Amino acid sequence: MTNYRAPISDMTAALTVAGMDDIAALPGYEDASDDMVTAILEEAGKLAGGILAPLNAPGDRQGCSISEDGAVTTPDGFPAAYQQFVEGGWNGVPFDPDFGGQGLPLLLGTALFEMWQAANMSFGLCPMLTVGSIELLTHHGSKEQKATWLPKLISGEWTGTMNLTEPQAGSDLAAVRTKATPAPDLGQGIYRIQGGKIFITHGDHDMSANIVHMVLARLSDAPPGIKGISLFIVPKFLLNNAGEPGEHNDLRAVSLEHKLGIHASPTCVMAFGDKGGAIGYLVGEENRGIEYMFTMMNNARLAVGVQGVGIAERATQAAVDYARGRVQGPDPARKTKGAVSIIHMPDVRRMLMTMRALTQAARLITFQTAAELDRAKAHPDESTRATAESRAALLTPIAKAWSTEVGIQVANLGIQVHGGLGFIEETGAAQYLRDARIAAIYEGTNGIQAIDLVGRKLIRDKGAALSALLAEMRATQADLTQVLPDLGPPLGAALDDVEAARAWILENSDPVNMQSAATPFLNLIGLATGGWLLGKLALNAMAGTGGDPAHDTARLTVAGFFLRHLLPATGGHLAAIRAGAGDLMALDEDALTPV
Amino acid sequence: MTNYRAPISDMTAALTVAGMDDIAALPGYEDASDDMVTAILEEAGKLAGGILAPLNAPGDRQGCSISEDGAVTTPDGFPAAYQQFVEGGWNGVPFDPDFGGQGLPLLLGTALFEMWQAANMSFGLCPMLTVGSIELLTHHGSKEQKATWLPKLISGEWTGTMNLTEPQAGSDLAAVRTKATPAPDLGQGIYRIQGGKIFITHGDHDMSANIVHMVLARLSDAPPGIKGISLFIVPKFLLNNAGEPGEHNDLRAVSLEHKLGIHASPTCVMAFGDKGGAIGYLVGEENRGIEYMFTMMNNARLAVGVQGVGIAERATQAAVDYARGRVQGPDPARKTKGAVSIIHMPDVRRMLMTMRALTQAARLITFQTAAELDRAKAHPDESTRATAESRAALLTPIAKAWSTEVGIQVANLGIQVHGGLGFIEETGAAQYLRDARIAAIYEGTNGIQAIDLVGRKLIRDKGAALSALLAEMRATQADLTQVLPDLGPPLGAALDDVEAARAWILENSDPVNMQSAATPFLNLIGLATGGWLLGKLALNAMAGTGGDPAHDTARLTVAGFFLRHLLPATGGHLAAIRAGAGDLMALDEDALTPV
Repeated sequence: MTNYRAPISDMTAALTVAGMDDIAALPGYEDASDDMVTAILEEAGKLAGGILAPLNAPGDRQGCSISEDGAVTTPDGFPAAYQQFVEGGWNGVPFDPDFGGQGLPLLLGTALFEMWQAANMSFGLCPMLTVGSIELLTHHGSKEQKATWLPKLISGEWTGTMNLTEPQAGSDLAAVRTKATPAPDLGQGIYRIQGGKIFITHGDHDMSANIVHMVLARLSDAPPGIKGISLFIVPKFLLNNAGEPGEHNDLRAVSLEHKLGIHASPTCVMAFGDKGGAIGYLVGEENRGIEYMFTMMNNARLAVGVQGVGIAERATQAAVDYARGRVQGPDPARKTKGAVSIIHMPDVRRMLMTMRALTQAARLITFQTAAELDRAKAHPDESTRATAESRAALLTPIAKAWSTEVGIQVANLGIQVHGGLGFIEETGAAQYLRDARIAAIYEGTNGIQAIDLVGRKLIRDKGAALSALLAEMRATQADLTQVLPDLGPPLGAALDDVEAARAWILENSDPVNMQSAATPFLNLIGLATGGWLLGKLALNAMAGTGGDPAHDTARLTVAGFFLRHLLPATGGHLAAIRAGAGDLMALDEDALTPV
Repeated sequence: MTNYRAPISDMTAALTVAGMDDIAALPGYEDASDDMVTAILEEAGKLAGGILAPLNAPGDRQGCSISEDGAVTTPDGFPAAYQQFVEGGWNGVPFDPDFGGQGLPLLLGTALFEMWQAANMSFGLCPMLTVGSIELLTHHGSKEQKATWLPKLISGEWTGTMNLTEPQAGSDLAAVRTKATPAPDLGQGIYRIQGGKIFITHGDHDMSANIVHMVLARLSDAPPGIKGISLFIVPKFLLNNAGEPGEHNDLRAVSLEHKLGIHASPTCVMAFGDKGGAIGYLVGEENRGIEYMFTMMNNARLAVGVQGVGIAERATQAAVDYARGRVQGPDPARKTKGAVSIIHMPDVRRMLMTMRALTQAARLITFQTAAELDRAKAHPDESTRATAESRAALLTPIAKAWSTEVGIQVANLGIQVHGGLGFIEETGAAQYLRDARIAAIYEGTNGIQAIDLVGRKLIRDKGAALSALLAEMRATQADLTQVLPDLGPPLGAALDDVEAARAWILENSDPVNMQSAATPFLNLIGLATGGWLLGKLALNAMAGTGGDPAHDTARLTVAGFFLRHLLPATGGHLAAIRAGAGDLMALDEDALTPV
């Protein structure tokens, strides 16, 4: 069984690259001083390492259960841990102080969020969904809805869910069939909701006093497709006159899914309105639900990317710890007589360095995305806000998809470092892979992220946002060439590949070619963005900004490894883009089936 | 839940590339006519698809159990299926007719073996281990031992196991501690065995009348290290005078491991000699056990590679079937109005084509390796035999490691194609990843395969065997340039990368650099070998040798996809080799630990 130690030094260095100092100078974020940030990270690290992490493996083994009437029980210790999480005020870190939040930057909230996910991804999913509900209501709720729901969601006393998926409507939300019927008898803006939803994370559980479901449903007279879907607040318990949970709404969890991983997070099949209609409150206007949901999904996508980082960090720690202790075979460097631990084996080193480098790269990308969102929200200058918003939009699908692939790849390497023991569940390494696997699928599959990146973020603005990013990347390349001359050329080669890919896609922007280029382009730009930010990290390390010189040296080595060993893979991705859609689309369905 | 259809057309095409026709012309293999091969593949396909495949998911769910006295029960249906397997004579296909085998080429046996693994990897492990015991005794057993054990092992009435690993001795077998003590009171060549073994696949089960354990143990006066380990036959039941299983030997399964996958294959902790000593029969000479074991492990490594192919094939079939049926969203090519199945989406196509191409490449590599082993055994010309043996030695670690990575990667993509359903165990896609994961670890981790490749197969002969292989690859490149001019350049570029890597490694052959280059070199040459053999497959398809023109067209497209979209990744691997060991070895243990 493995521990988790919040990597506060690596996180702090990544916060610095993302511009924590600048963000702390923005209006409203004055509380985020260096000392405060460090204190918060350390306190959060205690909760993550001391309370949440020890529940991770037992929660996986025990899983969740459901009673005949649909009441879900989470594993032993989860409700109490959640209580501690709420009492510590951790849920409200980045939210509006007017509703009880602490108003700290999302960048800092993202570092904390990584800790929760690393310590216990099943646990961390519950607040992740709550955050989604908070975002939705903050942007689209009425004044009254905000006053009613936000304080308890921000404190975490109530939790939120996202009810999007139906059996026939997964990636294609246009196919949603859940019905909403106005209920003027009950009041203005009140509807009766009837239908079934699947894959509802924490759709029911025993950790909070109420569960606030955000539900997509369709009015009978709504236009077809995504422009006919509305969004409703459908609480598990209706509120009484005191604003406290009262009568049980007409909804329930029907069953739990048997999943590859995240066993301690109940994934529910939900039934709304079996007894005539669950009471729901319309958010915003009718038929604009998808638009609202996308607001929320942007931040949720970043959060899922952070799950990838968290799992990768946890898997890396476990693998390094194991490799340090596992004595097996002679020292290839012949420095030591007798058997040495496998951390001395170059091939094991390659795995461990790959794990550390990918983890830090993904962390830098997610933190950078969060920082852009902070700037987009709080910067006093409008054009800076707009630039940051466009940068965040560009980075979000990369943060989601590339970081979750990193989570899978690093967890997979972690198993390999453990050898035969990695395949034994008690070791813990296998759980990281099982848990990490979902993050590449939910909140929009990684393929959909890649298509969003290429279609909405690259082709739509004719590459403008990417060009602005490339200019900054080239500046870092120039700095590296001055300070760390070994690292300039590999970054430069990767940026050449990005530019060539950008040019190819802009010249081949029809839907089929665009979609065929999407995943290799995402892989390419993920690597390049990781290389760029690790280049900045290396420059900071050379400047000795990381506090402990030994930590700076380690990060410099990790960055060098990434740029020299991993980054050159961009060339293969570029070749796949340029090979075009022809080979993909040539065969008909029958011919594509193995014979 | 998914079916399995043995891909007889793709297999036959791969057999042709591997030289089935030439092998059928070798002395002793005359029975392997085209018609006979087709008939055997079809019959085997029925057993695999009709009997073994339907047990795969239920076996995974039910798993194995162990009684207090160490008797292991396999899932419902497994003993009966094994009985059918034995009665059909499937276990003995490639073995010596003098002991009841059918004496058919290993190449054909490998195609069948892929079917068993694809249909039910847990089931297929049992005969895989038996094959290992057969190989060992065929090469190193005494005349009497062969007569005693081989007929029942070849028929499959008895099964075999490999008892190598101990808690302190995983990859480093020098650390084996199990004790062997001569028992002259019992007879010449008889020893008492005492000790514990772990990770013993099918160490006990209820599918056969006896289990013949091959056990590594150390004599008290043996030299230290790997030159002090001997090999023993230690049957579960001692044979009575009639040669039938009689008294229970002093050995038992102590417990079963809880594993990520292959739940229907019992992985046992074994205790030998709790009551004074299990009776064991020395194989060959004392202290030469590791040497003997390596004979067996060579073929077992190929077999594990074939497991990777089998799982990849199964996962591919499931993903294609799902993608054909899952309707979701509009047609990007705008050919169809309304929603279309996801097989029309270019990004899903990329996953499916990647799955098919990697699977076929890995199949070609494993079949080629088997063909070389057939030539090495049966060719009348001594120098041809020697060349084939050296080629097989070079290809074996590639077949093992690259194909098992393919198994993992393809199973992982298979989950992604299924979207959210891929994460739900009932779908079946997740089991393929869970099962596939072990194959990269056992029979020598893939890192150890890579070190074997670079150390023993490349540096030891100064690159001679690789040069001979490269010459053949270049000839295929020349043929492609004539017939399929698009495919010559990508193969040529990959071969340039192999040559550059070869040169770097021969110039940097110290253990640390060699080991640091090992895994990227294996990845590089695996891709290049796959590209070469797919090039040959494409040439055959152009020549119309595949029977059905539609099948030839499909294979041509798959080969083109591999060479244009996947093969260019060699450049990234070459860069990682050339980056050298410096970045890997720079940090000490503390600095390598995340902070």
